[in-house]
Amino acid sequence: MKVGIIMGSKSDWPTMKNAADMLDRFQIAYETTVVSAHRTPQLLADYATNAASRGLKVIIAGAGGAAHLPGMAAAFTSLPVLGVPVQSKALKGLDSLLSIVQMPKGVAVGTLAIGDAGAANAGLLAAQILATSDTELMSKIDAFRKEQTDSVLAHPNPAEE
Amino acid sequence: MKVGIIMGSKSDWPTMKNAADMLDRFQIAYETTVVSAHRTPQLLADYATNAASRGLKVIIAGAGGAAHLPGMAAAFTSLPVLGVPVQSKALKGLDSLLSIVQMPKGVAVGTLAIGDAGAANAGLLAAQILATSDTELMSKIDAFRKEQTDSVLAHPNPAEE
Amino acid sequence: MKVGIIMGSKSDWPTMKNAADMLDRFQIAYETTVVSAHRTPQLLADYATNAASRGLKVIIAGAGGAAHLPGMAAAFTSLPVLGVPVQSKALKGLDSLLSIVQMPKGVAVGTLAIGDAGAANAGLLAAQILATSDTELMSKIDAFRKEQTDSVLAHPNPAEE
Amino acid sequence: MKVGIIMGSKSDWPTMKNAADMLDRFQIAYETTVVSAHRTPQLLADYATNAASRGLKVIIAGAGGAAHLPGMAAAFTSLPVLGVPVQSKALKGLDSLLSIVQMPKGVAVGTLAIGDAGAANAGLLAAQILATSDTELMSKIDAFRKEQTDSVLAHPNPAEE
Amino acid sequence: MKVGIIMGSKSDWPTMKNAADMLDRFQIAYETTVVSAHRTPQLLADYATNAASRGLKVIIAGAGGAAHLPGMAAAFTSLPVLGVPVQSKALKGLDSLLSIVQMPKGVAVGTLAIGDAGAANAGLLAAQILATSDTELMSKIDAFRKEQTDSVLAHPNPAEE
Amino acid sequence: MKVGIIMGSKSDWPTMKNAADMLDRFQIAYETTVVSAHRTPQLLADYATNAASRGLKVIIAGAGGAAHLPGMAAAFTSLPVLGVPVQSKALKGLDSLLSIVQMPKGVAVGTLAIGDAGAANAGLLAAQILATSDTELMSKIDAFRKEQTDSVLAHPNPAEE
Amino acid sequence: MKVGIIMGSKSDWPTMKNAADMLDRFQIAYETTVVSAHRTPQLLADYATNAASRGLKVIIAGAGGAAHLPGMAAAFTSLPVLGVPVQSKALKGLDSLLSIVQMPKGVAVGTLAIGDAGAANAGLLAAQILATSDTELMSKIDAFRKEQTDSVLAHPNPAEE
Amino acid sequence: MKVGIIMGSKSDWPTMKNAADMLDRFQIAYETTVVSAHRTPQLLADYATNAASRGLKVIIAGAGGAAHLPGMAAAFTSLPVLGVPVQSKALKGLDSLLSIVQMPKGVAVGTLAIGDAGAANAGLLAAQILATSDTELMSKIDAFRKEQTDSVLAHPNPAEE
Repeated sequence: MKVGIIMGSKSDWPTMKNAADMLDRFQIAYETTVVSAHRTPQLLADYATNAASRGLKVIIAGAGGAAHLPGMAAAFTSLPVLGVPVQSKALKGLDSLLSIVQMPKGVAVGTLAIGDAGAANAGLLAAQILATSDTELMSKIDAFRKEQTDSVLAHPNPAEE
Repeated sequence: MKVGIIMGSKSDWPTMKNAADMLDRFQIAYETTVVSAHRTPQLLADYATNAASRGLKVIIAGAGGAAHLPGMAAAFTSLPVLGVPVQSKALKGLDSLLSIVQMPKGVAVGTLAIGDAGAANAGLLAAQILATSDTELMSKIDAFRKEQTDSVLAHPNPAEE
Repeated sequence: MKVGIIMGSKSDWPTMKNAADMLDRFQIAYETTVVSAHRTPQLLADYATNAASRGLKVIIAGAGGAAHLPGMAAAFTSLPVLGVPVQSKALKGLDSLLSIVQMPKGVAVGTLAIGDAGAANAGLLAAQILATSDTELMSKIDAFRKEQTDSVLAHPNPAEE
Repeated sequence: MKVGIIMGSKSDWPTMKNAADMLDRFQIAYETTVVSAHRTPQLLADYATNAASRGLKVIIAGAGGAAHLPGMAAAFTSLPVLGVPVQSKALKGLDSLLSIVQMPKGVAVGTLAIGDAGAANAGLLAAQILATSDTELMSKIDAFRKEQTDSVLAHPNPAEE
Repeated sequence: MKVGIIMGSKSDWPTMKNAADMLDRFQIAYETTVVSAHRTPQLLADYATNAASRGLKVIIAGAGGAAHLPGMAAAFTSLPVLGVPVQSKALKGLDSLLSIVQMPKGVAVGTLAIGDAGAANAGLLAAQILATSDTELMSKIDAFRKEQTDSVLAHPNPAEE
Repeated sequence: MKVGIIMGSKSDWPTMKNAADMLDRFQIAYETTVVSAHRTPQLLADYATNAASRGLKVIIAGAGGAAHLPGMAAAFTSLPVLGVPVQSKALKGLDSLLSIVQMPKGVAVGTLAIGDAGAANAGLLAAQILATSDTELMSKIDAFRKEQTDSVLAHPNPAEE
Repeated sequence: MKVGIIMGSKSDWPTMKNAADMLDRFQIAYETTVVSAHRTPQLLADYATNAASRGLKVIIAGAGGAAHLPGMAAAFTSLPVLGVPVQSKALKGLDSLLSIVQMPKGVAVGTLAIGDAGAANAGLLAAQILATSDTELMSKIDAFRKEQTDSVLAHPNPAEE
Repeated sequence: MKVGIIMGSKSDWPTMKNAADMLDRFQIAYETTVVSAHRTPQLLADYATNAASRGLKVIIAGAGGAAHLPGMAAAFTSLPVLGVPVQSKALKGLDSLLSIVQMPKGVAVGTLAIGDAGAANAGLLAAQILATSDTELMSKIDAFRKEQTDSVLAHPNPAEE
């Protein structure tokens, strides 16, 4: 288990599944858990505190609204924490984004875009982080990136059916 | 000790002092403590978990930026928690406000205005909460409110020196 | 009757019903009334002025757009007033939120999140306020909070059917 | 006395003085009064309720933050009410603007720009309103507008000393 | 013809019809015209320049996005101009609102809320302006306001079918 | 005279001077004029209507707040119009930006950044437009761009004195 | 080929097609290509670097979210670049707009409105730019503008079927 | 050399120095370079393309306004890229933040807070990333975090001199 994907509510899963899918693509082992900063603060403390000793290398945390999960996970661990702002109903994720990204000096959260793209990129960035010490994984990422480039190049005409 | 005033950093004190001043006016006993959600998460957990048994009735929490202190305090206690968004440098407290007020269903923070006025009103609202079971205090609040009204009425001319 | 739930328009009821439901859960007596700051300002003045003498302990006020109901209720009473920003059509409740939360020093409104979650939490915070002098109610809230925690813990897998 | 200029606090006077100055220019009689929606709600109710019978034709109301004064004045009178959003400290008047302009159907506030320009224009619009039944005043306004135009035309070079 | 209702595009009519309906209620004569600041700037200049001599007393102008119609109408006439921000697709009328309300000193637009409520209130405010010199109309407005109040008072229970 | 630089007020000159300076650098002839959409609408109509026949090729228009000058200039000419949002006091140019950029289909304004950088770039873009039919000017722009690149490359160390 | 229309993704085509349609109306030759700043950065560099020598006169670039395509195209060419902010899912194009328009001094992007209207106007502005050295094209644009004006004038009644 | 710190302009150095200071604290080797996405796009392409082969493990990129540097660096490398939104003059870094964080699926930037705190945290997160394969470094980070916690605990009284 290299990556822990946590989210504040089961309703965040359709968004956070994009992170899991990206990790699957790179065959990186991960676990997915509902951990609510507000409803299960002790679980969050325990999860984050023990993450490193359990062998996790990166934590991906997604939450919406007053999104405290990523920052509080970061408060309890020295592992890199990546935050995904889940799109909220009224303010469309602007609240989620500001709640996650505006961390004070000394406790960091690497924040991704609001919603599905952000979750997918959290998976990708987690892979890139692991690849800093895993050349085989770095090659897989290079290949993914090349494939992505080729896919654009193969269809240069936006109007084609 | 009826009210616990906590804040994420000593730099929040000039704002949060307004809450203390308001409690002083009503002779309500309070304590002031620096408790950082991100730098001292375990202290926060302990503080909020034990607040009720230590006799506190209300917690006032102020923080800026990705302001997680009020919501996380609320996560660890059933006491009423009042949140004060401290004005931040870049986004002027809009980030603080959204981080505090947009709590999910099931864990509530009563949020006041950004900055000094909000801190003073957190003190006032704490007094109003205590006064729901303290008629003498309610009389003091009524008097404060009347005094405030009289002060406006005494100077109806905005242009007077 | 412990809590008065007021709202600016009958169209706010689907939102504000969440406050009533939460109070029902704690068996707290409440009343629900349409009181418009703009269309029935005298009713608002009378309602808020007499709320304490009628035995109310907390007022929950919900409104949208230029949402003046919570602040004006607070202007006429020393009881704690909790404000719920109802989601508006064009600006999605950002106008409601700022109109409610940015109160000047001396008259406080404890503001909750925009929409359904905020209304539910207004009910919860009202209960927490009443529980500051009612240990039996505090136990009920502790139990609700524990139940809520257990419900998350019982389903840690976000992907389960 | 044709126009009543009211404001929530004496600190709003430097802004609202611009409305008075504009009325002076057209020799329109006015009065200036501090009336706080939150600290003197009964005064506001009385002021607005009696404004028409006292002979006022237009009310100009300025306030900042959760700016309820213009809308609540409008709630108590059928006279035209013009609202001036005073620039607030944290949110720079965006809160004031939304609190004033986003009135619900049935109670209207004609809202001007944030700050000094808005206050001056409230004075101007009040004059324009009075001029709908006062051709002499309309001539004065036409002259003011022509003078303003001529003043621009006289100095077409932006770089001149 | 007392009131001229203009709008930037035929697509604004569903919004602006609310202004016409309100004027109908008070039996105030009005005309409705599509006048685009950007596509028919000369028509706008002519319309606004001649409005007073044609007997119009108030102009109501609605537009969306970079909404220049109200301000430019005001630039060509000394009549009171009321602006209605039409809800735009991407930014939901925030662009329309700021484009209309933030007028510089010397040319005023009395701005109403975004969308239908704002248009209805533009009709109401136009009536209130005309009523400053028409006591019969003022009585009608008082009656409308009373009817509106009674309608709320008649249905105090938000949950009734 | 190839480029007309217009601005709503003499107070916009410190910003708009950056456009003039950029045109000076490319030895492009220009004129600078105060033309207010609101205070001198007829001048604006005349200026824009006659711009092409006077030989102007591009118009650069700067304005702040409810910034109607660029869009209204575009309404009266088929020449390319470039808009510069001048930073406003309360809303820091967000109002200026939205008022200029959100033009409806059929009348275009090429909008640059808020403030000094935007004005300089309006001058640059005007030069680029003229260079589409002037290879000598295009060479000058290429040289400017290369010089700009070299200037960065010459000082790669951000910490050097 | 006079105009190159590029976009970050095939999903931007429904928006960017409006630019193509406008160019079709003026019989201006153009090409459309998917060029992603992030997925095909080298293609972008090559495309923009070679655009002038391939005979292109104007580049229209559309992108959404962190929209880097227009600014990066401008970084690699001295041709005029017009930017179209595509409406994004969460933030409705506010992110796209700010990412495109707020370019630093020295590299300019002429930015149009968010979405379809902005894309159509990018086509129009490209035509206006080409027309600065093509009087026949300028006549076509004048005719288009007149036709547009006439179309409004022909249907002055907003309520007609 | 483990970490490359790049920034769009020398004027970003006072902000980005906070990243360098944090890396100094952990004795992590780094380099600092001015690389402008817009003025030196080829340098950016070369820098990012060669970063991995030169031995860099993480890139920290800071930029303001239409901040394309972090995203474009990420487009040319598979290394983890961390983005720092530098506070801009008019919009206070909201433009910088959205330009950096809202990346599309497939190219990720881990974004930190606006300004100094964000830069410091970029240094910290880079250290955390390197520490995923360097237990000695992880111990240093644990010690830093503990020291930070102790520093708060040592001064619990916000009002002390």
